Amino acid sequence: MSPTPLRISAVDTFDIRFPTSRELDGSDAMNPDPDYSAAYVVLRTDAEDGIEGHGFTFTIGRGNEVQVAAIHALRHHVVGRDVDEVCANPGALYQELVGDSQLRWLGPEKGVMHMAIGAVINAVWDLAAKRADKPLWRLLAEAEPEWLVAQIDFRYLTDALTREEALDILRRGRAGAGERTQRLLERGYPGYTTSAGWLGYSDEKLTRLAAQAVADGFTQIKLKVGADLDDDIRRCRVARSVIGPDIRMAIDANQRWDVAEAIRWTKALAEFEPYWIEEPTSPDDVLGHAAIREAVAPVKVATGEHVQNRVVFKQLLQAGALDVVQIDAARVGGVNENLAILLLAAKFGVPVCPHAGGVGLCELVQHLSMFDYVAVSGTTENRVIEYVDHLHDHFQDPVVIREGHYTAPTAPGFSAAMRPESITRYTFPGGTFWAADLDEKKGRAA
Amino acid sequence: MSPTPLRISAVDTFDIRFPTSRELDGSDAMNPDPDYSAAYVVLRTDAEDGIEGHGFTFTIGRGNEVQVAAIHALRHHVVGRDVDEVCANPGALYQELVGDSQLRWLGPEKGVMHMAIGAVINAVWDLAAKRADKPLWRLLAEAEPEWLVAQIDFRYLTDALTREEALDILRRGRAGAGERTQRLLERGYPGYTTSAGWLGYSDEKLTRLAAQAVADGFTQIKLKVGADLDDDIRRCRVARSVIGPDIRMAIDANQRWDVAEAIRWTKALAEFEPYWIEEPTSPDDVLGHAAIREAVAPVKVATGEHVQNRVVFKQLLQAGALDVVQIDAARVGGVNENLAILLLAAKFGVPVCPHAGGVGLCELVQHLSMFDYVAVSGTTENRVIEYVDHLHDHFQDPVVIREGHYTAPTAPGFSAAMRPESITRYTFPGGTFWAADLDEKKGRAA
Repeated sequence: MSPTPLRISAVDTFDIRFPTSRELDGSDAMNPDPDYSAAYVVLRTDAEDGIEGHGFTFTIGRGNEVQVAAIHALRHHVVGRDVDEVCANPGALYQELVGDSQLRWLGPEKGVMHMAIGAVINAVWDLAAKRADKPLWRLLAEAEPEWLVAQIDFRYLTDALTREEALDILRRGRAGAGERTQRLLERGYPGYTTSAGWLGYSDEKLTRLAAQAVADGFTQIKLKVGADLDDDIRRCRVARSVIGPDIRMAIDANQRWDVAEAIRWTKALAEFEPYWIEEPTSPDDVLGHAAIREAVAPVKVATGEHVQNRVVFKQLLQAGALDVVQIDAARVGGVNENLAILLLAAKFGVPVCPHAGGVGLCELVQHLSMFDYVAVSGTTENRVIEYVDHLHDHFQDPVVIREGHYTAPTAPGFSAAMRPESITRYTFPGGTFWAADLDEKKGRAA
Repeated sequence: MSPTPLRISAVDTFDIRFPTSRELDGSDAMNPDPDYSAAYVVLRTDAEDGIEGHGFTFTIGRGNEVQVAAIHALRHHVVGRDVDEVCANPGALYQELVGDSQLRWLGPEKGVMHMAIGAVINAVWDLAAKRADKPLWRLLAEAEPEWLVAQIDFRYLTDALTREEALDILRRGRAGAGERTQRLLERGYPGYTTSAGWLGYSDEKLTRLAAQAVADGFTQIKLKVGADLDDDIRRCRVARSVIGPDIRMAIDANQRWDVAEAIRWTKALAEFEPYWIEEPTSPDDVLGHAAIREAVAPVKVATGEHVQNRVVFKQLLQAGALDVVQIDAARVGGVNENLAILLLAAKFGVPVCPHAGGVGLCELVQHLSMFDYVAVSGTTENRVIEYVDHLHDHFQDPVVIREGHYTAPTAPGFSAAMRPESITRYTFPGGTFWAADLDEKKGRAA
């Protein structure tokens, strides 16, 4: 008699919000007052050891409940599934979710519904990595190329990347993978910091944090720009004078500009030698990015945190619109779609420097860059993972930064799980923090 | 003493679903079993005459509740607003909704959150047209060019269309507008029908309905393709033999193909002289559409019903990727964004042939094409509005088709209001139809 298979017994969702707007953490030209939030999902199983898969979509406050509703709408595809089957082939579930013919109308493959798929799929990978007793980066790096390629949806990609080309890249990536794993465990993966450069910070705070970043071993910092050109000139001058000529300084406009304005503004900041201009315009504007890139070189063009799916990344690469691909772990359809994007970037020879920060994005995306280093691109040259020093203490396996490098996680899973006490405190609106906040507001009003 | 201003007193939402999948109405290569649905919104006012604004997002079933939640998330921007102020300048509210810095993260300007904005904004235009005692097409056609241009968000557009260029187009559009209004009232606006060509229909049904379409005065029909090439060849042959050489036959793949496959498949059907191939690949793939268009000429390339916003339409036009712009009244950010798209199309000289069908999309989009005819493009040459003969009886002011033409609406508003008894019957899951359906299922299970 075969044993009863383990099942996914429930898909639980949580609306978790942190009151970050009160400190101006995370303020930029388009997002003046974000409350960093997570539409959080837990895949419960009936395993005796209580093993679970955790995942989430990052949002910045209002609307987090819509994102939770979207995750909830996927439940019927997941509850009751055989855990071993799902973990053996997350790609099958990914295809099923993306292919739901009625839900597809709400995207397709973009926005709220697609991010919900990403949250669920990432939770499956968390579960799969825990079951395999490996950190996710290692599970991916040690997987067979054939199996990895089977995780990818090549629909709409084959004019730029075929299954065979992807397989070739992954097979080539095996050479030296063991040594790179060793180096990764010893040295970690380089990061850069955005913590100094939020738009809402004073020059004094910028100076102090930029100096701290250099002292901490980071070789790149990032400044938010795009609200006021005179302010940007002053802040870039301050930052450059603090960090000196050898530390890279990226600037980030968070989609603030039209094409001509992006070119004009970036050129006006060129004397401070920005390394890249990030999100100069709409993330949907492939042709716009191509025009900007041509005009602002040698300043590089970076985007990706809001790029909705692999089809737009494909075109950004086809059009020569990007110098830097900024994947986000929780914007697209989860690990499966990010595998496709990493392979597209490798095919076009463009470095991947992930977007992170927010809630738990550093925790997730480090696994993807580490896999890329060990098994795809084989290098960390001109590659850095964004690092923002916020909210890590809410995670069970938070990132560890040493001398400007992400330390390779060793705990099994995708580092996605929040601490239970943080979930209890910051669930909106009923968690202890928000309930007390509401009481206080009522008290002031009375 | 000035009178108390009228306020928007409530934003009510409804999850309305029709069981269309039981008849295979609406079946195509990507959507085998749609249940045509509407996330429906009513802006209540405290006016004594009970005037209301109605709007909706069309979906195809599952996930309609997510769309309702997204509309609900916009409530705080709308409740309590001065009705006259909002109606005098819907563009201000549109900018406020699109610019909500926290909700913006969920798009930006795409997918569930953006369609929710479209539903609310369209409801505002319904209210504005009712207050003006005009059908919406007429309100728009009689508006000052300066006011219309102020309704548009030019962000991300100025590399292709400036405010001044838009103003020029609208000023030129005034010449002869009175005569065109007269002609429109007499003759209506040409339509074409998709009712014959759903993938789930038998050859017998296709034959009968195609013959009926010609008898009804339509000069263009449309067939769904893309599931099976042999079937498509047979169905195109049947249809062409029924309609003869002079009726246009469009084909529609509903995003089924990759670029190379789209080219191959379309060429395989070229002998039946399709007029356009619609949605040959991902709606996000600007460069893919450009490649397909170059390869399949003289077959035209059409897309738009899933094009997420004006930024993607801009690029499709910049890249020469389209012969036909298929606006959808309820996919983008409502009338305001569709004004931008109509003006982009006019700038690039590409005809607009709207997507319609679904629930109420014919009712809405006719107003936009009629405005385009009277005040923008000034012509109906090579322009047709899609017509599907489904679900019109649920609307208070349903479209009227005469000899293959949409009759110009004369009732005030945007023709968006559903009949109260339809809302009562088809609200999901508590409406009388669905409650009875559930009882029956329970009965069968018992």
